[in-house]
Amino acid sequence: MAATRQGLLLESIQRLLRRGATARVQHLLEKTRTEDIAHLLPGLTVRDRRSVFDLLPSAETQALVLAEADRSFTQELIEPLPLQRIVEVLRALDTDDVADILRALPDEKAEPLLAALHAQESGLVEEILGYGPETAGGIMSADYFALNRDTTVTDAIRTLQERGEELDMAFYIYVINEHGHLVGVVSLRQLVTSKPDRRLSEVMEPEVISVTTDADQEDVASIVARYNFLAVPVVDENNRLRGIVTVDDIIDVIKDEATEDILKLAGAGEQLAPEAPARDHLRMRYPWLIASCISGFLAAFILEPFIGALGAFLGSFVPIVAGMAGNVGIQSSTIIVRGLATGAVDTTRSGAVVRREVLVGLALGVGYGLIVGTGAALVAWLQSDGRPPLEIVYAGLAVGLSLTASMLIAATVGAVIPLACFRFGLDPAVATGPFVTSSLDVIGLLSYFGIAVALAMALGLHG
Amino acid sequence: MAATRQGLLLESIQRLLRRGATARVQHLLEKTRTEDIAHLLPGLTVRDRRSVFDLLPSAETQALVLAEADRSFTQELIEPLPLQRIVEVLRALDTDDVADILRALPDEKAEPLLAALHAQESGLVEEILGYGPETAGGIMSADYFALNRDTTVTDAIRTLQERGEELDMAFYIYVINEHGHLVGVVSLRQLVTSKPDRRLSEVMEPEVISVTTDADQEDVASIVARYNFLAVPVVDENNRLRGIVTVDDIIDVIKDEATEDILKLAGAGEQLAPEAPARDHLRMRYPWLIASCISGFLAAFILEPFIGALGAFLGSFVPIVAGMAGNVGIQSSTIIVRGLATGAVDTTRSGAVVRREVLVGLALGVGYGLIVGTGAALVAWLQSDGRPPLEIVYAGLAVGLSLTASMLIAATVGAVIPLACFRFGLDPAVATGPFVTSSLDVIGLLSYFGIAVALAMALGLHG
Repeated sequence: MAATRQGLLLESIQRLLRRGATARVQHLLEKTRTEDIAHLLPGLTVRDRRSVFDLLPSAETQALVLAEADRSFTQELIEPLPLQRIVEVLRALDTDDVADILRALPDEKAEPLLAALHAQESGLVEEILGYGPETAGGIMSADYFALNRDTTVTDAIRTLQERGEELDMAFYIYVINEHGHLVGVVSLRQLVTSKPDRRLSEVMEPEVISVTTDADQEDVASIVARYNFLAVPVVDENNRLRGIVTVDDIIDVIKDEATEDILKLAGAGEQLAPEAPARDHLRMRYPWLIASCISGFLAAFILEPFIGALGAFLGSFVPIVAGMAGNVGIQSSTIIVRGLATGAVDTTRSGAVVRREVLVGLALGVGYGLIVGTGAALVAWLQSDGRPPLEIVYAGLAVGLSLTASMLIAATVGAVIPLACFRFGLDPAVATGPFVTSSLDVIGLLSYFGIAVALAMALGLHG
Repeated sequence: MAATRQGLLLESIQRLLRRGATARVQHLLEKTRTEDIAHLLPGLTVRDRRSVFDLLPSAETQALVLAEADRSFTQELIEPLPLQRIVEVLRALDTDDVADILRALPDEKAEPLLAALHAQESGLVEEILGYGPETAGGIMSADYFALNRDTTVTDAIRTLQERGEELDMAFYIYVINEHGHLVGVVSLRQLVTSKPDRRLSEVMEPEVISVTTDADQEDVASIVARYNFLAVPVVDENNRLRGIVTVDDIIDVIKDEATEDILKLAGAGEQLAPEAPARDHLRMRYPWLIASCISGFLAAFILEPFIGALGAFLGSFVPIVAGMAGNVGIQSSTIIVRGLATGAVDTTRSGAVVRREVLVGLALGVGYGLIVGTGAALVAWLQSDGRPPLEIVYAGLAVGLSLTASMLIAATVGAVIPLACFRFGLDPAVATGPFVTSSLDVIGLLSYFGIAVALAMALGLHG
């Protein structure tokens, strides 16, 4: 649905709710896809969101909207409903969605709901809840289709026709042996195009790529992306099939992980819904600024004697040296962090990548060092009220050389920090964001100060 | 394939190639999936890459590796092959992959290849090449499955069984009328579970969500992600079916667009392969630093008289004020840019989002203004050699108030710029990255200077 149509729908619903025309809202909602209804919710007030949710035609529609809606609305939407209705809504959902919704609720609300589900279903949900929320086990669905290796193609198609309705995403038939071990896979297309009397063991692909329940969801996403799978089977440590992760969930994982990395790089938390209230934003964003606060105080301590010793002129070029080095550092670290996330950079290539960054940092540093150094000398010359030429040269050299050194250091630090984090199992994006820039501020200033003082001594200036 | 296994395979191939053991490399490659071979390429030298590509068992394997490999290797891999072999490789590929590969070649190489393809195939490829590379038409595949509305379920299944082998991703049967207009869709599952004598028009879903050939690939990705589709049909302006975009291509789009946004926000270009040579990095990254260079000179012009008028002490707090305001601005703009990309923020909600950012900026500013202002006063007091208490209060007030003002301005500017870009059809990520931070450096410094001077006058200091 195009953005404008979505906007019109939102306005209509708001207007009709204000007028109390609930029958017309109901009519409008019936004609709208559940995914589109879910995407309307952030634009509504809490009150209107609840009204819309109440006016949905059935528990099944409510279930579909709830599954697609942002998790930050879960509690507020189901809270007003009686327990029996919530259970009805949950029963209409896949086990992975139920687990996801229960995770968004406080324990004291989730437990009675879990207890009220059918025994078999609550067992599956509890199993999923038992795995980490960002693991294959934690996002897998139990709605897969597994048949014994001795099943014939005819029987497989018949079973599929009988059970097809319940299975949302049955593209592959997983083939298991008598112990429940995953031994092969048959695509729906292979099945339809195979001779009816053959056994699955004869038509299946025996080399199945699977993931274990504890696999990180990012790794699961890489596998699905690399092999263009529609679903990947999840097995336990004994290769027994436990569930599947489908491509639609993988799309969400890829989007969420990219958002997480972007926000971490910006030092803005990890999972911040743009529609979250100011309070949540403050809580997430306040702590990240501490790095920059501390490095700022350090910078102040370095800068004051620097200005005292070398004068306001060199002091006034601090922002350009610090700013440009910071930008180069952000470029380097961002390229590496994203490369690590997409798999384009890995530890087998880290040496080459660091060498490249050192080279790039040096080239950028020399390039901009010449420009900015010449500019600084020019400014010094224009302002020179009979200042000796040596001081003008000094100004240009100090600014230019410091910029070259700072940019070189920045590119190197920006490349090494995320790679080191990755090697030691830390999250490169978290460590990189505010910490790289803050530490570069201080390092840049120190190298500027050091180079300026050394040059002054070498040229016999300032006593 | 786990990262370590991939690393071992890479080492084995490098070792065997050094020893000239081509038969063993060949054997190893035959046992490896084409997707994994494609992912080995960046770790090899140009020479080894070409050797591996030459040693692949068939034109079809070469085609699969080429399709999955990064486009930066396309030209170097096929260049040494004779024209006839390249044509053989291309014929083994889907039309969208052929178009993608031809786009990566210079015109004088692509044209003879296009001419050498079969007439029907080259017509389809030329059609795809005629659309923009980032539009639905430019990424669509012609390997879809469309049947007339009067076809029976039995006939549809028979056709599928006959043609199934060529169709890689046939999950949906698109239903067209006698004019080729798209009128419905039937999933493979619906087909298998429907009565054999019914017509497609009776079992189809008549409300098909489709995209037009000129739709932006990002919008296509949003649709697939929102509705959990496996493929979305692409139609021309008259609703005639032209192709499909499948979910595996959408995953690539989502990853690429996220990478693009991340790199743009960091001012590091758009599409920079981390394995690209230093020369390419330099060309992409050099221009983005100009914003920061210009704003740095502006800052220098403001800062020198500032230090002259108000002294080294206040000057030394410039980095903390500029740095923290810059960080808040990056937080705000990143949250908005990502929200716009994922659809969590849109123009219907921009007012609320800006109000939230103003509030957050004010709260962060007051919070850190108190801390840093108190810190500055403390430093001033510790350094005070008989300095009057009023000057100490002034130091704290000037730093604290400036920080509050700068952070408030930064959050507001950081939110408004990407929203304004979005509204006027500009790319929010490009405009945001280096430009927001650079302009904030100057704005922050000006507000610091202004507040400090105004306060000094109000308190009757500095004459």
